[in-house]
Amino acid sequence: MNNINKAIPSAQSAGAFREKYGPWALIAGASKGLGAAFASQLASRGLNLALVARSADALQELAGQLSAQYGIATRTLALDLSQESAPASIAEQVADLEIGLLLYNAAYAPVGAFFDISLEDHLREIGTNCRAPLSLAYLIGQPMVPRGRGGIILMSSLSAAQGSAFISNYAATKAYNLVLGEGIWEELRHQGIDVLVSCPASIATPHYLESLQQDGSGSPMPAMPPEEVARETLRALGRQPLIIPGRANRAAAFFMQRLLPRTAAVRMMGRVMRGMYGAKKAGERTNG
Amino acid sequence: MNNINKAIPSAQSAGAFREKYGPWALIAGASKGLGAAFASQLASRGLNLALVARSADALQELAGQLSAQYGIATRTLALDLSQESAPASIAEQVADLEIGLLLYNAAYAPVGAFFDISLEDHLREIGTNCRAPLSLAYLIGQPMVPRGRGGIILMSSLSAAQGSAFISNYAATKAYNLVLGEGIWEELRHQGIDVLVSCPASIATPHYLESLQQDGSGSPMPAMPPEEVARETLRALGRQPLIIPGRANRAAAFFMQRLLPRTAAVRMMGRVMRGMYGAKKAGERTNG
Repeated sequence: MNNINKAIPSAQSAGAFREKYGPWALIAGASKGLGAAFASQLASRGLNLALVARSADALQELAGQLSAQYGIATRTLALDLSQESAPASIAEQVADLEIGLLLYNAAYAPVGAFFDISLEDHLREIGTNCRAPLSLAYLIGQPMVPRGRGGIILMSSLSAAQGSAFISNYAATKAYNLVLGEGIWEELRHQGIDVLVSCPASIATPHYLESLQQDGSGSPMPAMPPEEVARETLRALGRQPLIIPGRANRAAAFFMQRLLPRTAAVRMMGRVMRGMYGAKKAGERTNG
Repeated sequence: MNNINKAIPSAQSAGAFREKYGPWALIAGASKGLGAAFASQLASRGLNLALVARSADALQELAGQLSAQYGIATRTLALDLSQESAPASIAEQVADLEIGLLLYNAAYAPVGAFFDISLEDHLREIGTNCRAPLSLAYLIGQPMVPRGRGGIILMSSLSAAQGSAFISNYAATKAYNLVLGEGIWEELRHQGIDVLVSCPASIATPHYLESLQQDGSGSPMPAMPPEEVARETLRALGRQPLIIPGRANRAAAFFMQRLLPRTAAVRMMGRVMRGMYGAKKAGERTNG
């Protein structure tokens, strides 16, 4: 998760971007935070947007705002991505649209000791964070093959690089996305489809900020604004399989993954997570 | 996935091992290959065995042989671990046993290009390789907490370290196990429970050998005998969170993960996998 993120000046014009990844983008986990930032930046490039999240109201507000501002077409799909039926239902509801870009940003992220989180919540995490992105990459990605163009972006996390106490299952699901995305990047690049995995560190989304301890002492590194994460991610699409947004995060990743012995990295993450979340038993952070 | 596997002489006597991880071990994916090797080595240490796999006949044959040879008690559970109900059913069927060691070895591993494998098979892979080990670690691991002792072994793979074309979803599920295991290692080591992730390279199991191209030219490295993989894995339990069985594999992992840029590692895996499996469209390898 490093050595490949040298800053490259953006050369993607809105027109070329739309030609490669348009006319529609589907964003799963789109209602606020990072998903809304992605939606806004894709709309500014002229892509029509199919927006998926649980809250119909939040989706419609965002869709209305973006179509007014950028003159794009929108469609909103209010769905719970943890449900087994969600991916097929989405594919059906957008079957009439030519989707050139899939962006899977939804995540369910309960925080707490492994046995303090219910098994039901752990399984919901697999549903939202593994089953749904796999299924959508399959169902939305397959029609891209005959077109010979398109893009798939999966959101992973720096926590995917090694085990992380207190978010042990979440980190595992993010490792799943990282390795899945890299594998299909290697397969699909020969067919004109660009796959990208984005591994941000902390992002200053409403959910993340809420999840921190109330005295605010918890965060080990400054959280990155979602707009910057979205910008660096979209800029990397088509150039490389993996992006770690933020120069400081790339440096931290190099240290954690290339220099530090892996067991030491796991122990260090344990100390960080106890510092951030040690006071609470089990809470949750969600996207979408 | 390296720097931590220095050879340590085994100091685990059978008696001490049984005291820490007995009196029962549950092995999921136990009927042949690596699972049978684990079963035999645990029986030789005096642990009673609950054996789970799909084939009742194969399980009963193995159980009969091990109980005759080592005088241990056995229980067999013929179940398909890809089924959502399997973990709860297992937990119920062993509720009367004190299980000190969980060893999750089952895996479903279809081989082929991402879109050549059916979505149903991809989802079955998540069921067998993610949902079931997570659920069993939870259901079998939780009763270990009040005892203050026990062990959980999750089988990952060297392929977990980066994306792998042709087994893109399999590698992702193995990354899930790697990072899940490390995360709960860090949590549970404070409670006397030893978690271990084992990341073998190729193992000379019947399924693996069958999966290679028939001319035998495919395998890039010699496959390790399952008995050796089991021996190195069990020796590492309680010493470290992660073991890569085989010195040559540890060297290869160091090169792939610490020296090679990640994108280059993904491309190299792509070339290796095309060499091994390029001639066939989609096949399968399974354990258990």
